[in-house]
Amino acid sequence: MTELPFNELGSIETKSIELFPEGLQLESGVTLFPITIAYETYGKLNEGCDNAILVCHALSGGAHAAGFHPGEKKPGWWDVMIGPGKAFDTNRYFVVSSNVLGSCYGSTGPSSLHPAKGKPYGLRFPVVTVRDMVKAQRQLLDFLGVRSLLTVTGGSMGGMQALQWAVSYPELVRSVIAIATTHRHSAQQIAFNEVARQAVMADPAWQQGDYYETEGPRLGLAVARMVGHITYLSDLGMEQKFGRRLRNRERFGYDFSLDFEVESYLRHQGQSFVERFDANSLLYITKALDYFDVANGYGSLSKAFRETRASYLLLAFSSDWLYPPHQLKEVAQAIRRLGKDATYCEIKSDYGHDAFLLEHQIQTPMIQSFLDRVAKGKI
Amino acid sequence: MTELPFNELGSIETKSIELFPEGLQLESGVTLFPITIAYETYGKLNEGCDNAILVCHALSGGAHAAGFHPGEKKPGWWDVMIGPGKAFDTNRYFVVSSNVLGSCYGSTGPSSLHPAKGKPYGLRFPVVTVRDMVKAQRQLLDFLGVRSLLTVTGGSMGGMQALQWAVSYPELVRSVIAIATTHRHSAQQIAFNEVARQAVMADPAWQQGDYYETEGPRLGLAVARMVGHITYLSDLGMEQKFGRRLRNRERFGYDFSLDFEVESYLRHQGQSFVERFDANSLLYITKALDYFDVANGYGSLSKAFRETRASYLLLAFSSDWLYPPHQLKEVAQAIRRLGKDATYCEIKSDYGHDAFLLEHQIQTPMIQSFLDRVAKGKI
Repeated sequence: MTELPFNELGSIETKSIELFPEGLQLESGVTLFPITIAYETYGKLNEGCDNAILVCHALSGGAHAAGFHPGEKKPGWWDVMIGPGKAFDTNRYFVVSSNVLGSCYGSTGPSSLHPAKGKPYGLRFPVVTVRDMVKAQRQLLDFLGVRSLLTVTGGSMGGMQALQWAVSYPELVRSVIAIATTHRHSAQQIAFNEVARQAVMADPAWQQGDYYETEGPRLGLAVARMVGHITYLSDLGMEQKFGRRLRNRERFGYDFSLDFEVESYLRHQGQSFVERFDANSLLYITKALDYFDVANGYGSLSKAFRETRASYLLLAFSSDWLYPPHQLKEVAQAIRRLGKDATYCEIKSDYGHDAFLLEHQIQTPMIQSFLDRVAKGKI
Repeated sequence: MTELPFNELGSIETKSIELFPEGLQLESGVTLFPITIAYETYGKLNEGCDNAILVCHALSGGAHAAGFHPGEKKPGWWDVMIGPGKAFDTNRYFVVSSNVLGSCYGSTGPSSLHPAKGKPYGLRFPVVTVRDMVKAQRQLLDFLGVRSLLTVTGGSMGGMQALQWAVSYPELVRSVIAIATTHRHSAQQIAFNEVARQAVMADPAWQQGDYYETEGPRLGLAVARMVGHITYLSDLGMEQKFGRRLRNRERFGYDFSLDFEVESYLRHQGQSFVERFDANSLLYITKALDYFDVANGYGSLSKAFRETRASYLLLAFSSDWLYPPHQLKEVAQAIRRLGKDATYCEIKSDYGHDAFLLEHQIQTPMIQSFLDRVAKGKI
């Protein structure tokens, strides 16, 4: 008998719900139906229905943010931050985590069945945006009886959703904790995503997205993930972790077999991603990232935040070169120019972009004290 | 009649020579035969045979460094730096540029004919190292009657060759001008190269390197180049050049066609690279880059330079994140610890790694005055 790892949250299951009985009108104008959203909750909603926290995931994340699924040895992706006594304290708060529209972890996406065609959407799936993801989350919260959000939080794409929440639904959002993110992609950020997409689409096994009866673009998807993975780590972090160490040999192989440990690590990251993620979802979600601009339709960043009522905690990491600190600092400045409350902090870390998943010890007290002040109405 | 662009060097042709009549013994222990090296020269060797400069190219460069080939509209890759009155003044100096072993621009490489098989080597080609490239260049210089080098210079992989020259042949090298380079690759630099290799090898058209009777891995090679190209530009440089400008449209396409200008630029870079470069050469040359460590066999960087007699000018660029300045600074420090002459300069530029090809106005006076002092025996 295998003993489950101990976790205060106990055993967790992902639930799912059908929303938008009349279809969800997307930013593109297309109406999508049916809509299923996968989600998890941790802790309890209080009687005032005002202790809810929405946690938003990054590109390849899902609803499973904390605790253990039965029989699994790895907890949810932000388990270090969510639980009793943790940054998002489930003794006090009701934490909701949902899988974004377009993903492959239980929410409607390109690998879902096209209702009329009787087979997966593939490229027939409409383009979804961060705004669309947030719109779907809002109906989920209605269903769960959440009337207002103490905070919306997330790192990377999760942080974009958090910012978008404050702008889309100002009356519902009391605070935002956006981490390792930006208000919009730069040319370089778009470029890295485009390379990932091209790697997938260059694989003949991609078959214009209609690969669901085959193995799919395994090689292309692995290359796409390898590119991504380099951008998640810092130069220094990689050097400390791998340096020029060789794998299982004393000297160079003088051939194209594995030589350096960093090569083997990257290939492993590519391989394991292929086992767990849908290539079309990668295309759709990277496109959503590239299209995201919280100021879209407002003319400027400050104008976008003008009607928002939230307080902001914006955390960037010194070695995050994928979402460099200056981007989030710009958001803080735009919000402050409106006379609104925005705390910006650049946290020193060697973990690069991945720091939002790893640096829980430094993030926890900052988040706890921020949430405390928001809960007590002090900011 | 098409008028040729004016260039002081006049019309230039690439020559080639067969070297190592008994074969070249490579660092791996393998003997390679026959060896052809493609080269160009500009200016004249003086009577003392002491005004020669060797220019070394980067990953995808070739012997054609300056002037125009008949009928072509683009000059050699470092034409801004080589010519009468330029940084490498052909009125004073005899400039030699040769294509490295393993490349596809006239020197022996994986696309050359295997003498016994009667078809291209493909992966039967032995792994070559930067030390091997330099060894081949030395025989070329012997053939050209060059007895000593006023300087060896180059950017990126060219800079590695320049450093290797000083270490391999201390008696021949009076100075080194190494630009935007390193003494060895970090884990991140290896990682980017590994992604490029995986992109090529993931393409079924690569066929284990035996693709010479077909079109070859065009899609994979394009993806590899796209990754590379991002690393050649700086974040800020890309932002200034492209930002979030859309291509031929006012609004997002909400599909996977081209949206952003930076996407179209990258795809174009990928495509045009496919027309001009051999995929197997990319594999071999990136491997040479990753294996390069000028201290290999010496125990430390300082020990590697102990017997060298050169003066050093080491130029790095502030926004070059592929070869970040701290690497070349470390080289300068190691050389200075030996009491030898090393000038290190971090040049402010937004052009990223490509700056060594573009920032000729700031490089020219520094190089001219350095060469002047070397030529006059002042350093």
